Amino acid sequence: MNKEKNIVETKYYTFENFTMKSGKVLPKVTVAYETYGTLNAEKNNAILITHAFTGDAHCAGYHVGDEKPGWWDTMVGPGKAFDTNKYFIISSNVLGGCAGTTGPESINPETNKPYGTNFPLVLISDMVKVQKELINFLGITKLFCVAGGSMGGMQVLQWAMDYPEMIYSAIPIAITLKSTPQQIAFNEVGRQAIMADVAWNNGHYYDKAEPDRGLSVARMLGHITYMSDYSMQKKFPIDEDKEKTAGFNFNADFEVEEYLRYRGSSFVKRFDANSYLYLSKAIDHFDVEKDEFLPEDKNIDIKFLVISFKSDWLYPPYQSENIVKFLKMKNQEVTYCNIYSTYGHDAFLLEVKDETNLIKNFLNKLYNEVFGGEK
Amino acid sequence: MNKEKNIVETKYYTFENFTMKSGKVLPKVTVAYETYGTLNAEKNNAILITHAFTGDAHCAGYHVGDEKPGWWDTMVGPGKAFDTNKYFIISSNVLGGCAGTTGPESINPETNKPYGTNFPLVLISDMVKVQKELINFLGITKLFCVAGGSMGGMQVLQWAMDYPEMIYSAIPIAITLKSTPQQIAFNEVGRQAIMADVAWNNGHYYDKAEPDRGLSVARMLGHITYMSDYSMQKKFPIDEDKEKTAGFNFNADFEVEEYLRYRGSSFVKRFDANSYLYLSKAIDHFDVEKDEFLPEDKNIDIKFLVISFKSDWLYPPYQSENIVKFLKMKNQEVTYCNIYSTYGHDAFLLEVKDETNLIKNFLNKLYNEVFGGEK
Repeated sequence: MNKEKNIVETKYYTFENFTMKSGKVLPKVTVAYETYGTLNAEKNNAILITHAFTGDAHCAGYHVGDEKPGWWDTMVGPGKAFDTNKYFIISSNVLGGCAGTTGPESINPETNKPYGTNFPLVLISDMVKVQKELINFLGITKLFCVAGGSMGGMQVLQWAMDYPEMIYSAIPIAITLKSTPQQIAFNEVGRQAIMADVAWNNGHYYDKAEPDRGLSVARMLGHITYMSDYSMQKKFPIDEDKEKTAGFNFNADFEVEEYLRYRGSSFVKRFDANSYLYLSKAIDHFDVEKDEFLPEDKNIDIKFLVISFKSDWLYPPYQSENIVKFLKMKNQEVTYCNIYSTYGHDAFLLEVKDETNLIKNFLNKLYNEVFGGEK
Repeated sequence: MNKEKNIVETKYYTFENFTMKSGKVLPKVTVAYETYGTLNAEKNNAILITHAFTGDAHCAGYHVGDEKPGWWDTMVGPGKAFDTNKYFIISSNVLGGCAGTTGPESINPETNKPYGTNFPLVLISDMVKVQKELINFLGITKLFCVAGGSMGGMQVLQWAMDYPEMIYSAIPIAITLKSTPQQIAFNEVGRQAIMADVAWNNGHYYDKAEPDRGLSVARMLGHITYMSDYSMQKKFPIDEDKEKTAGFNFNADFEVEEYLRYRGSSFVKRFDANSYLYLSKAIDHFDVEKDEFLPEDKNIDIKFLVISFKSDWLYPPYQSENIVKFLKMKNQEVTYCNIYSTYGHDAFLLEVKDETNLIKNFLNKLYNEVFGGEK
């Protein structure tokens, strides 16, 4: 890392013959990842950060030439919640995504063409299994923590279900044990918007025009669900004068329309429509509300910090309360906090101060337990 | 009305040179309407029912050959909340709609072609002004009540603002004083889905294929906002077996997806995409939170019954509380009830028992005041 501006770069790890939950085998998988901080000699100070739906491996620091840092730079760095002076932070892009890790726009080695919708079903557990391959490659046998919000929180819980012996603690943020019909419904509308775009062409569009209009509509809807009624009123006050003179030619009469259109059109430049379909389906199928998650006879002991946000209506606090109840029923040690916030689901990216305090305290306590006092 | 099955029919009233709020003039307007019950000699027992976004004039009884009655038949009829033994009920389709009243799919007499997007801007006050023309035509000078839910509630409040001397009482249900950015945002995503459909063709598609895919996506989204998180969980329980065997070919894996696709595809058979654009814009521009609404020096006295529903997150109860506060500040007589319901915004169509009791009591009291005792 560069001291002035924390210059970081994305790395890639490639491995072969990856068997997915569905039984399908990917002949080759590349996983894009970044690391920050230093892995200690015992290799027991590693924290895995898992990203949300449209995130990527670049969670902290700056890429050369970039104006903006990674998506969780407020939380990951020296002295921050995930303190790179203490911990070795790993962040990887998910399977099925479009930011360096194998996904539908990758070349299928068997056909030398992009997979498109021939890419196999991806589940959250497939994403996590790829991360496990990466962790193995890095020589780590047990993670100090896995932490993430939204779809990142799904990966956290899936880690605890699939590889409980490989994690010491877990921080699932703004998430649920299992997708609800309303959550699935929003995703389905996004998918239908993409698939309604003639340019989608059943997912085989990589040598043609891309389904930008459909993907943009899907993203606009996403943004509404990430904010709250209140945060939208604060961010986009209705301009009475503009309203009065509105031309009514289906241009944007209101600021909120301009904002959503802008977010939609900028999103299509960085995201692949098929990845939107695959990742949203993975989210829909997420379900760890199962007997095989933390079975009591296995004597599993993971420390959990569960965080939710009061105004999050996409993953409302009651769903985090259900996580807490489930974990307590499984005799796990759980700390829970419902943070007061008006930002809606986006709060997990914005309520930095409260999240930092909570996570720091949680990790410090464990750190002292594992490493015997402050470093 | 037929006694066995209350057979009703839609009637049409046509008038010329209608000046809209924007100053634009429609050379000819036809308004589709239905009436139930009998207008008394004094013509003072008339109640106007105003419909929601995708509703129509057919609110009660059966059309010849129909299996299903009008959209609010549970509430309008002999002995019901809007008792046709006492009242003369009028229900009319809104300007800009597509169920018999002049709108974008109507023939422009100046070009002999459908207006399409050459149809002028429609505001809620234009809809109400058309209703006033109809009321005048029926020889009524003062309505006993105006009542409606959702966009129907907007018309109720707009009546009270634009023609306060013409209404004795008003029942706005599940609505707001002014559209919020979140409400506008949902409408905008629906419009973008329609306009993203190449078949939309800037609104000139009436002699071609129609933008059914885009309109269907818009409707799917609408349905999510009309239900609640809870009501969706009850209606579409996740089927574990089905989930396990999901083919993941972007077919519907979950019941909620099937439902939304069905509702989307059936909607396009009865609704015009351009009407969706116009009416949603009218909703967005709705705003009666103004000084000129019920100015105190005018000595206006309307009896209000304001109703909201606990689980309605599209028009949350706090917005009805704002209506109540606004009306009280204007020294009006207001009764307010927030009905416990898990149905979300759809509750105004479903919570028949509570709504019936509230509305019956409210109307009975006024009836006794106006007519001096039970009929």
